[in-house]
Amino acid sequence: MLELSGHTCFGGEQLRFQHRSRVLDCSMRFSVYLPPQAQAGEVPALLWLSGFTCSDENFVHKAGAQQFAAKHGIALVIPDTSPRGEQIHKGDEPTWHLGEGASFYLNATVEPWAANYQMASYICDELPGLIADLPVDNSCFGIAGHGMGGHGAIVLGLSYPQLFRSISAFAPICNPAKTPWGETAFRHYLGADKARWQHHDSCWLVANGACRTPLLVDQGSDDHFLEDELKPERLQAACAEAGHPLNYQLHPGYDHSYFFVASFIESHIAYHAGILT
Amino acid sequence: MLELSGHTCFGGEQLRFQHRSRVLDCSMRFSVYLPPQAQAGEVPALLWLSGFTCSDENFVHKAGAQQFAAKHGIALVIPDTSPRGEQIHKGDEPTWHLGEGASFYLNATVEPWAANYQMASYICDELPGLIADLPVDNSCFGIAGHGMGGHGAIVLGLSYPQLFRSISAFAPICNPAKTPWGETAFRHYLGADKARWQHHDSCWLVANGACRTPLLVDQGSDDHFLEDELKPERLQAACAEAGHPLNYQLHPGYDHSYFFVASFIESHIAYHAGILT
Repeated sequence: MLELSGHTCFGGEQLRFQHRSRVLDCSMRFSVYLPPQAQAGEVPALLWLSGFTCSDENFVHKAGAQQFAAKHGIALVIPDTSPRGEQIHKGDEPTWHLGEGASFYLNATVEPWAANYQMASYICDELPGLIADLPVDNSCFGIAGHGMGGHGAIVLGLSYPQLFRSISAFAPICNPAKTPWGETAFRHYLGADKARWQHHDSCWLVANGACRTPLLVDQGSDDHFLEDELKPERLQAACAEAGHPLNYQLHPGYDHSYFFVASFIESHIAYHAGILT
Repeated sequence: MLELSGHTCFGGEQLRFQHRSRVLDCSMRFSVYLPPQAQAGEVPALLWLSGFTCSDENFVHKAGAQQFAAKHGIALVIPDTSPRGEQIHKGDEPTWHLGEGASFYLNATVEPWAANYQMASYICDELPGLIADLPVDNSCFGIAGHGMGGHGAIVLGLSYPQLFRSISAFAPICNPAKTPWGETAFRHYLGADKARWQHHDSCWLVANGACRTPLLVDQGSDDHFLEDELKPERLQAACAEAGHPLNYQLHPGYDHSYFFVASFIESHIAYHAGILT
């Protein structure tokens, strides 16, 4: 594993690594923020899953999360949003909500996607091992994300409860099995049989899963994707019916940008730190 | 003037504008952050000058300044770092420390630079008028900047004391008349006569100017440019000799990146707000 860069930041270290992923069969990059407390011993970590088109760098540069991670003494681990590279399948008609930068954080079962798009295994199996030499507790994490990454955080959080102790999301795609972007992606990655889609859908998991980890969700009211793609009202309904704990806040005027994420990241970091530390 | 974008951010508004500059004779963009307090009336503003290669967007996305501007009720006004466009002279051997993105915030006197590189007039004369319709006090400002923009903040701040009531800088180029980047730029923009350079040099202005506005300067000890180009020790010596108030802090481990700026921007915003409000 190669350390690409390191910067002192809020008394801690902002690091970026490159490595060959055995699960994804390609070269990958990810970022880690180590708070000042990591100089004295192991700290808990929050795993951040970014949204469509992002690499690991968007959150690192735009969210302003490091100051709160430093305050609360938790590390941030930020993987990329999909496998990368010339040899990676991108679909016959490349678009920003399918393929590169748009993995939906699942393990694809249909070729040619399945050869590389194994992001669930990458994040839950491979990534914890990659950070084993860092002063980070890699036995369990908090998980959070934005947009497609909010979907990933809820689905992986509810699917791997022994690995993820706390879950939060900004503007997540709540019901991808029944909204346009998700339907397109799931058809490509998982095939036409919709019965195979439901395990990758937050609403279905809340209604049918065993895991009861509470969900913290923030959403902007002026998010252009709110009505057609995100559908938080369906997650609210599913949680209400299943008795699944959900703290949902709709914020007037905010859109889908990182200006929204930055405005509320402090409360998410504090929430995860309160559970993890 | 065209509003290119607007995002709700920490309860205020992050705005971006495009306009035709009469002073620079080209199309320009700049950003403004209005804190929530601007909804109730006029607020004071801090003018931010970015460093080499930046547009107005780097500070907007990477510094995390909006939260502190919102807390203290001051606006942020962020111009670009030079004139822009195909027709703008970029030098015979374009480099990142001369020409586009590297104006040094002065008024060039040598053609072909002088036709467009009039950044001092753009910032001090034209920009205040451009924001006259916003709920911002455009009669006086705080001024701050980073690297080349730190140079610009100190030089313009000391040269236009009626316009700028407070001055601060991150890792400024302190003595451009006697360091390589500055010498190259001044030779191009101002000609070979070094007597014309000194009015654009912070050390000379401190030693010879009438203005006694205090300076707040933060510098990272691991900044790659510290030894050859920034020379804060010369500014310290000039301030000590002239009795010019300087609050200089050297921060171990920090480099020249926006991770350094983000780590200490809170104290700069609070400093300017304390004087302006």
